[in-house]
Amino acid sequence: MSQTPDSAVRTYIEQHRAAFLDDLAAWLRIPSVSAQPDHAPDVRRSAEWLAGKLRETGFPTAEVWETAGAPAVFAEWPSDDPEAPTVLVYGHHDVQPAAVEDGWDSDPFEPVVRENRLYARGAADDKGQVFFHTLGVRAHLAATGRTAPAVNLKLLIEGEEESGSAHFRELVEERAALLAADAVIVSDTGMWSEDTPTVCTGMRGLADCEIRLYGPDQDIHSGSFGGAVPNPATAAARLVAALHDEHARVAVPGFYDGIVELTDRERELFAELPFDEERWLRTAKSRAAHGEAGHSTLERIWARPTAEVNGIGGGYQGPGGKTIIPSSAMVKLSFRLVAGQDPDHIEKAVRDWAAEQVPAGIRHEIVFGAATRPCLTPLDHPALQSVVRAMGRAFEKPVRFTREGGSGPAADLQEVLGAPVLFLGISVPSDGWHAPNEKVELDLLLKGVETSAYLWGDLAGHWSRTP
Amino acid sequence: MSQTPDSAVRTYIEQHRAAFLDDLAAWLRIPSVSAQPDHAPDVRRSAEWLAGKLRETGFPTAEVWETAGAPAVFAEWPSDDPEAPTVLVYGHHDVQPAAVEDGWDSDPFEPVVRENRLYARGAADDKGQVFFHTLGVRAHLAATGRTAPAVNLKLLIEGEEESGSAHFRELVEERAALLAADAVIVSDTGMWSEDTPTVCTGMRGLADCEIRLYGPDQDIHSGSFGGAVPNPATAAARLVAALHDEHARVAVPGFYDGIVELTDRERELFAELPFDEERWLRTAKSRAAHGEAGHSTLERIWARPTAEVNGIGGGYQGPGGKTIIPSSAMVKLSFRLVAGQDPDHIEKAVRDWAAEQVPAGIRHEIVFGAATRPCLTPLDHPALQSVVRAMGRAFEKPVRFTREGGSGPAADLQEVLGAPVLFLGISVPSDGWHAPNEKVELDLLLKGVETSAYLWGDLAGHWSRTP
Repeated sequence: MSQTPDSAVRTYIEQHRAAFLDDLAAWLRIPSVSAQPDHAPDVRRSAEWLAGKLRETGFPTAEVWETAGAPAVFAEWPSDDPEAPTVLVYGHHDVQPAAVEDGWDSDPFEPVVRENRLYARGAADDKGQVFFHTLGVRAHLAATGRTAPAVNLKLLIEGEEESGSAHFRELVEERAALLAADAVIVSDTGMWSEDTPTVCTGMRGLADCEIRLYGPDQDIHSGSFGGAVPNPATAAARLVAALHDEHARVAVPGFYDGIVELTDRERELFAELPFDEERWLRTAKSRAAHGEAGHSTLERIWARPTAEVNGIGGGYQGPGGKTIIPSSAMVKLSFRLVAGQDPDHIEKAVRDWAAEQVPAGIRHEIVFGAATRPCLTPLDHPALQSVVRAMGRAFEKPVRFTREGGSGPAADLQEVLGAPVLFLGISVPSDGWHAPNEKVELDLLLKGVETSAYLWGDLAGHWSRTP
Repeated sequence: MSQTPDSAVRTYIEQHRAAFLDDLAAWLRIPSVSAQPDHAPDVRRSAEWLAGKLRETGFPTAEVWETAGAPAVFAEWPSDDPEAPTVLVYGHHDVQPAAVEDGWDSDPFEPVVRENRLYARGAADDKGQVFFHTLGVRAHLAATGRTAPAVNLKLLIEGEEESGSAHFRELVEERAALLAADAVIVSDTGMWSEDTPTVCTGMRGLADCEIRLYGPDQDIHSGSFGGAVPNPATAAARLVAALHDEHARVAVPGFYDGIVELTDRERELFAELPFDEERWLRTAKSRAAHGEAGHSTLERIWARPTAEVNGIGGGYQGPGGKTIIPSSAMVKLSFRLVAGQDPDHIEKAVRDWAAEQVPAGIRHEIVFGAATRPCLTPLDHPALQSVVRAMGRAFEKPVRFTREGGSGPAADLQEVLGAPVLFLGISVPSDGWHAPNEKVELDLLLKGVETSAYLWGDLAGHWSRTP
């Protein structure tokens, strides 16, 4: 470990920290909510803002890439070393929906720093974790005296991650030649805790759907007709109730087909982590652990597939009562998938199961979103070891291994580009992804900058590019 | 049957029909939605409008009665015959919530006549059926040449029926001396069909509640935490799914305790009605009959208790997806009760059942609204025979017997005043109570006027007042 460049990196980061945070705040003010059609202009504005900032950072190429949905951003900074490997950093510039009335202490799109934390929608997921690479690459150049990075550095920052990455695969396939890389660094995950830096080795996949159930052609009087016709809200509830069996296993036939079970080594790595269930429950804002029988909490969130209700609605939800049988009801379900599960197979299994469950007299339809495949990185990959070393230098602590329960389109990159996927993230579980009061810890964000600053040199020094 | 007064009644009604409908339309324009606090001023305006109109009709007393909730209207017109019996007409001036976006073809609070039907929220339930008594009593006086009705006529028109009549019992108890009557005529039910006039002999009672379920303190990420903590939307759904067993019987222990089963004579009367299930399903806007095993559709809606979901909600219900475990969920349930069921016992049974069902880690609370007791009128009561005769004269057809699946506070009047309760209604199932496009058939509304015009003379002639 070389002390001189490390201290040069730290000095550079300290000197540029204020401008870096101002820039990030400007980006966070753009409400780039990809799931809500009326925010489409904001998603575009976010892409344009980022492309401009990357050009300002020094990337010779930084451009907005159109898709059939929301635009992505691509940037490229070739190394001055013709032998350098090529790395593609993946992240996203769109964010989850957020509204003050969901329980935010301040406007989700007006970033504010309280107690060394930056609060805003997207602070951790994922604008903060994309943006640390801008100061990271500048610090890498400043500390090494280079004019171009030690690797051929590419960024692909998509605009539809929070709404299912519907056009991402198509984009990657179309632009595969420009995106070609020896490794993909996914900058959209987290680490174990403030005190325990970790590298993530896999992500769950995601399939999601909305099931709409239709009963009477309009709301009808529950006194005049109650007890004698099927109620679509009851049908929706019975469908959800049938999702899990008494062991909290998903009861959709075929759901577990082909899954890759955990190895003993992976169980050991999980067990090495300082897991405190009471503390974890506080982070989950929950009062009890509950899940598939025969598995630990960590296994449940990282290595087991799940089915969750994200939303349910039907009938009268206002104040007081309204004695109706509602005309319709709906449920939004999402399924986290693990290695070995195929989203197409899951969609078919859920459709068949729902058709079995819905009673006579209730019509139903199911709309699936775009699926995200699960993925896993080999523990012994040399580029993974570079990430571990760069993170160890930044945090000055041993780096352990985790997985990520969330989902991302990393598996598409792995499949189309034929490159291994590595995960680098500095977010912690308390950051509140998808929740009110999302934040990022400023100290960790700057460790992310520092890791990024060390990573390109380490990669170039320890791993040769594909011939 | 005297032909002269009948034709005099009809002539009088024909001459005053236009003014009567204009007045009713003015009342229907007042959105007296008692379940929505912001409509409280409208409910009061509705009461004041009605009291004024009753004074204009000729009632010497017509006043707004305050309650701890919405105001009621009381009116009294003593007979000029000191031996006359006293009749109390019950109805309500509040209405169900309604909004154009629920599926109305026109503004629910801007009455419009299309194809001889008057469309407006409250047209049938219950303003139209209260209002026919105003022209009815005038036609009774005009046709008989009287200056006061043949009975001591009282009206009690409450303002909280659609939100559970929370203060009705208290009001009736406080004002029992003024309300004293030999019979109560409930003018808030319907009849079999346009072609089959019927008298209703009973109503189901109602208990309703909202069950709120709380999981994480805020919405949390379904990737980071999914599969490892309890989901309150799942808990809500499982609660609803557990409401009924596989025979569609209510599965709350103790729910059926003490119910009065149908007699053979009552089953015969039901069977005399020209019931066409396909036609009934069209009225119910539904595609299948479904309900408690071992009972016919008519038994299910009139004589069997039920549990229905009126509303369910939790998590994200907007466009697209949001991969969260929601912080909370709720269900609104209502239970229709039959003779022999006690609302207090039902509330306790539901509370005990819910506490058993809700899983560890989910907190729940249950809020019950004010209950309405079920009631039944003896088939052989002489006042019931008067209603049958008056209706027979108006409709010129045999009058049959039904029950009403809906609920009203009639049982409180029966209990507190010690008077039998009779039901007179001209609404038909297709009128769409509680639904979009509620309407009343103008021909039937005027038959209601006519029935009211005959009833007071028949009652006075065939039934002597309580000594």
